[in-house]
Amino acid sequence: MSSSLAHRKAVKKIRFIDIEGNALSNTLVHVKLVNHQFLFGCGSFDSLPATSEADMGQSNVNHDMKMPEKSFFEDRVNKWLEVFNFGTLPFYWGRFEPKEGEILTDSRMRAAKMLQKNHVKVKGHPLCWHTACADWLMDYDNATILQKQLDRIYRDVTAFRGVIDIWDVINEVVIMPVYDRYDNAITRICKELGRVRLVKEVFDAAKSANPDATLLINDFNLSESYRILIDGCLNAGVPITSIGIQTHQHQGYMGREKLEDILERFSVFGLPLHFTENTLISGDLMPKDIVDLNDYQVDEWPSTPEGEERQKKEWSEMYHILFEHPLVEAVTGWDFADGAWLGAPSGLIRKDNTIKPVYHELKRLIHEEWNTEGDLRTDENGNVILNGFKGEYEITLKGRMVNFTLDGNGDSKDDVIEITV
Amino acid sequence: MSSSLAHRKAVKKIRFIDIEGNALSNTLVHVKLVNHQFLFGCGSFDSLPATSEADMGQSNVNHDMKMPEKSFFEDRVNKWLEVFNFGTLPFYWGRFEPKEGEILTDSRMRAAKMLQKNHVKVKGHPLCWHTACADWLMDYDNATILQKQLDRIYRDVTAFRGVIDIWDVINEVVIMPVYDRYDNAITRICKELGRVRLVKEVFDAAKSANPDATLLINDFNLSESYRILIDGCLNAGVPITSIGIQTHQHQGYMGREKLEDILERFSVFGLPLHFTENTLISGDLMPKDIVDLNDYQVDEWPSTPEGEERQKKEWSEMYHILFEHPLVEAVTGWDFADGAWLGAPSGLIRKDNTIKPVYHELKRLIHEEWNTEGDLRTDENGNVILNGFKGEYEITLKGRMVNFTLDGNGDSKDDVIEITV
Repeated sequence: MSSSLAHRKAVKKIRFIDIEGNALSNTLVHVKLVNHQFLFGCGSFDSLPATSEADMGQSNVNHDMKMPEKSFFEDRVNKWLEVFNFGTLPFYWGRFEPKEGEILTDSRMRAAKMLQKNHVKVKGHPLCWHTACADWLMDYDNATILQKQLDRIYRDVTAFRGVIDIWDVINEVVIMPVYDRYDNAITRICKELGRVRLVKEVFDAAKSANPDATLLINDFNLSESYRILIDGCLNAGVPITSIGIQTHQHQGYMGREKLEDILERFSVFGLPLHFTENTLISGDLMPKDIVDLNDYQVDEWPSTPEGEERQKKEWSEMYHILFEHPLVEAVTGWDFADGAWLGAPSGLIRKDNTIKPVYHELKRLIHEEWNTEGDLRTDENGNVILNGFKGEYEITLKGRMVNFTLDGNGDSKDDVIEITV
Repeated sequence: MSSSLAHRKAVKKIRFIDIEGNALSNTLVHVKLVNHQFLFGCGSFDSLPATSEADMGQSNVNHDMKMPEKSFFEDRVNKWLEVFNFGTLPFYWGRFEPKEGEILTDSRMRAAKMLQKNHVKVKGHPLCWHTACADWLMDYDNATILQKQLDRIYRDVTAFRGVIDIWDVINEVVIMPVYDRYDNAITRICKELGRVRLVKEVFDAAKSANPDATLLINDFNLSESYRILIDGCLNAGVPITSIGIQTHQHQGYMGREKLEDILERFSVFGLPLHFTENTLISGDLMPKDIVDLNDYQVDEWPSTPEGEERQKKEWSEMYHILFEHPLVEAVTGWDFADGAWLGAPSGLIRKDNTIKPVYHELKRLIHEEWNTEGDLRTDENGNVILNGFKGEYEITLKGRMVNFTLDGNGDSKDDVIEITV
């Protein structure tokens, strides 16, 4: 194991005793990491049609494919669950509440609870954004729009508390007040309030609804503008807990140097970094001269064998770089299956649910290369030293299984944790 | 007079009485604007050698010409005083305090008091900047550098209070922490503290030394980054009173559309705008591919007759646009004479002090086109209505002269101001 991953691991001394308090000495113990503390994530929009037929087709932003059977999505979700422990569910206001008061809480709750049951942490995305916003909001004046935005945040964060405790609170603020492709309620209020004030308002609303939640600001613009925005927000007392970084690399993988530059520049705040939306494609690259990725419209964007090999190599390098960085806490691939946003070959599986090389590679990294599993033997005092990746463990000895969380920083094996078996 | 200048004017009813309280009816009154409220400014670095021989050659950042006689600078200053009512004096730390403790307060004080005596408001530039900073600061650790920076601000703002009450508190923050052309003390502390925190610290120091001062943030980067920075600072409680905007247009005049876009984007904060550093040249334009203007080094950069005509036209248009905008409070040409920064033909006079067309044009605008002067006659109650550009007036009647300040918004002629003659 590379020493550059030391921050991902912990060392604990565990003492096993029986119910009478006697040490279980010289006993074989099997330890197995069953869930990483690190959040290995992916968009989980397919869990909506897989858990409900009520709003199929509502789940994805640019999804215009003919809807297949529910079993097709169940197959997808099963493949998803074999790899990831962190899923993003859609809360785009315009789709979540297509008419004022008609809110699709139930569908999201079913999907979120299914994921939670499978030991997946869920993130809601996003609570405030100028794109995919509710058109009906534009019937109101700015003061009312703001109030409804804050009410919506309070309502949804409250409703999902305990099920969804991670939120992309606000999305793409750098561009928000200058976004001019179409009129929308959020650009209107951002123009009036300014960026920092709006960010503060929406974060305060989310925080009041769930004080312990992980609350992200999220952007694709990774220029100095975003750093200055975060700097201003933090100095203005905005309760940002983590910084969201998007890398939709339809125009080609940015490479190690650029990625490390981003990591260095956004580490200065000392906050956890979430790579929230990451795309690497397995087909032809989008031309470099496209500025708004949404402008690239193609009839077919096939995945190719060479592209799939490239995609696997790039994702693997990116995973290594991000997992090695101490402040990164989450990495989320955006599309699980090809053909979602922009119709791109951006998934880990193909449109027909067949598995691409990158799927095998990420699964191998998460569940083999960075796994901890093995047999230990207790000493005469019933002690073992567990040195492994942080996360949830199953520990089996004498035919019995106990759950154990390995956490903390570095080497703390002088503290003994007693487990009664 | 164009109605687009209504915000620059005021209307007041003035009643003239004698010392017994009798109305001076049917009396001829001559009114004359002697100093605009609007700040028509220019760099006044030449006032240093004109008022002192002690530190000649210290006055200008990139001044490498052989120093002429003092009378040469006195001639310059006299020409300067014929046009402007607002002057910028240099406080670059590295030159103001070349060795720690050796501060050139006296030279600046002499120049500032000379300007003040001539009814010129003075601005000190700048209190914190990574360029032209004091090298000796780099011998200290970051905490000490910050403390010395704050002490320096408090010391100098206090020393000049009542003489200089307008300060460029911090300069070019957008680039400050990523500036990598050479190591310097200010980039170091900006990297550590972050931009907004440093801005807050230096403004708080300036404010504590002179609570009523006009305190500017100032930048050449007019992108969204600067807007976001200002937004963050204001939300973090930084006492910015005015926004400084630089336009060094060595690569060509930006034109009306771009200028109006800047005005619109930086008006959102509702704060006064100071166009702090403006350059339009009267020679060949600098090539567009130069990013840092300091990289353009030429042996000779002559002023040409065609260039001087172009410069006059461009300055005139810019003056009109800025004077018409309600939030603009000050416009400062950067170089008064050619051959200062970058050796450019950027002045209103040539290197040999001969006058360029732009000088005549700006003088004409300030002192003729936008002047208020004329004869009025009091009515039977001793009243006249003064409708003119805001500023200081000399009013003469019955062989006596009184000073009067015309201020306020729009039409307030129902309030009568009594003047005893």
